[in-house]
Amino acid sequence: MRIVLLGSGNTATVLGRMILQAGHEVLQVYSRNEAHAKILGDELSCSHTNDIGSLISYGDLYLVAIADDALLAVQEWLTLGKKLVAHTAGAVSKEVLQQVSKNYGVIYPLQSLRKENRNSPSVPFLVDGNTPENTTLIIDFVTTFSNLAEIANDEQRRHLHLAAVIVNNFTNHLYLLAEKFCEDHQVDFDLLLPLIEETGTRLRNFPIRQLQTGPASRNDLRTIDEQLKMLVKYPSLRNLYQTFTESIKNEFPQLPL
Amino acid sequence: MRIVLLGSGNTATVLGRMILQAGHEVLQVYSRNEAHAKILGDELSCSHTNDIGSLISYGDLYLVAIADDALLAVQEWLTLGKKLVAHTAGAVSKEVLQQVSKNYGVIYPLQSLRKENRNSPSVPFLVDGNTPENTTLIIDFVTTFSNLAEIANDEQRRHLHLAAVIVNNFTNHLYLLAEKFCEDHQVDFDLLLPLIEETGTRLRNFPIRQLQTGPASRNDLRTIDEQLKMLVKYPSLRNLYQTFTESIKNEFPQLPL
Repeated sequence: MRIVLLGSGNTATVLGRMILQAGHEVLQVYSRNEAHAKILGDELSCSHTNDIGSLISYGDLYLVAIADDALLAVQEWLTLGKKLVAHTAGAVSKEVLQQVSKNYGVIYPLQSLRKENRNSPSVPFLVDGNTPENTTLIIDFVTTFSNLAEIANDEQRRHLHLAAVIVNNFTNHLYLLAEKFCEDHQVDFDLLLPLIEETGTRLRNFPIRQLQTGPASRNDLRTIDEQLKMLVKYPSLRNLYQTFTESIKNEFPQLPL
Repeated sequence: MRIVLLGSGNTATVLGRMILQAGHEVLQVYSRNEAHAKILGDELSCSHTNDIGSLISYGDLYLVAIADDALLAVQEWLTLGKKLVAHTAGAVSKEVLQQVSKNYGVIYPLQSLRKENRNSPSVPFLVDGNTPENTTLIIDFVTTFSNLAEIANDEQRRHLHLAAVIVNNFTNHLYLLAEKFCEDHQVDFDLLLPLIEETGTRLRNFPIRQLQTGPASRNDLRTIDEQLKMLVKYPSLRNLYQTFTESIKNEFPQLPL
């Protein structure tokens, strides 16, 4: 397919690379920021523009990979007639494209995409279309560059997006707070990397509930009390520690020490 | 070295296997529970006992891999004279062994060990001894089965143990809550596994702070508000969502939408 790519951030860049690698043609990169448009256009060996009036008109698919706030106003600056258009956002309805074209849908990558990351992770996609035909067109396209493509409507995508915030954004924040705590106490955070990796990868082999260990799940009040004392100078971490301890205890109410 | 292993749980089992594989000899397994002692003794091809009076006296190292509460009372039931003894706990001082033997220390695996897990993860160890000679003896031993052994005193080990609780127990609890949320809304939690794996493994390649994305870090109040509404029936998760959002905002105060 011939793709026109709108956007020049992490999602646009990583999707552009995947699309190109799968043998499709990227015709043009559009971005409000001309320098960014040029960088990505050059990388994908295609033209670029920051003038929406110069958008190439013969694309097979217009892929809108821009920030949510810009996407929510897309009908004010993008009109594509009958051209197939898809956005890439997890928390925005496909209907935001309703005024943009008669044919629209969503290609949402359920992964944290970073253009600097050259060892590309596996990327599942949630796809949707405003008609069964468009859904089929879109999923057939996505399947050429990902073996994990599933159809999901706005509601399902919104729920998976929230779950992604929980398992990615929140855990990453825990890593950041733990790293600072280790630095302050002159212990090597990197020693935790094998544990962090194991915590994620073993989910494929065990029920998550069985994997819960630690002072809260065994109601070890001595350790909980001692660890809360160690966190007096870390109000954010202490607050999270308490919230987690209560939540974990709720899940494991009957377990004694 | 000739090892006498006290304990029969996850830590004792996994360490026993590692020790055996490194070419050491496990002489005996002791456990209060005879059935458990037998299972592990059989697996490690050595004798077993649940009678502390029958402990073999010619071991080079007595490894005490038991629950914290039992460990805190160890001096009441274990006396080893000058025999080298080490416990495996993260949050317990090495001094708990002071009355047990003249020579003691710690061999703490900074990993979540599960005997059912046959694809054994990399295990860093924090080691300590009551004298420089004992520390050297212990680290030389540990180095035969792990390439990640570091000396850490009680204080450092205590801090890394708390950090381990944060990066393992808390993230695992987030996975559990997210899985339930997905099941309730009939979306496939397994689609999140590549993201979960990527969230952990990429820490080797990027500063953690740079990896923070999501509504809280970009102060996207619209999405935060919508996601809080999606969590009204999930008080634990909603509470965590709010606590994380405040904590992440504190870290990224100056970033606009």
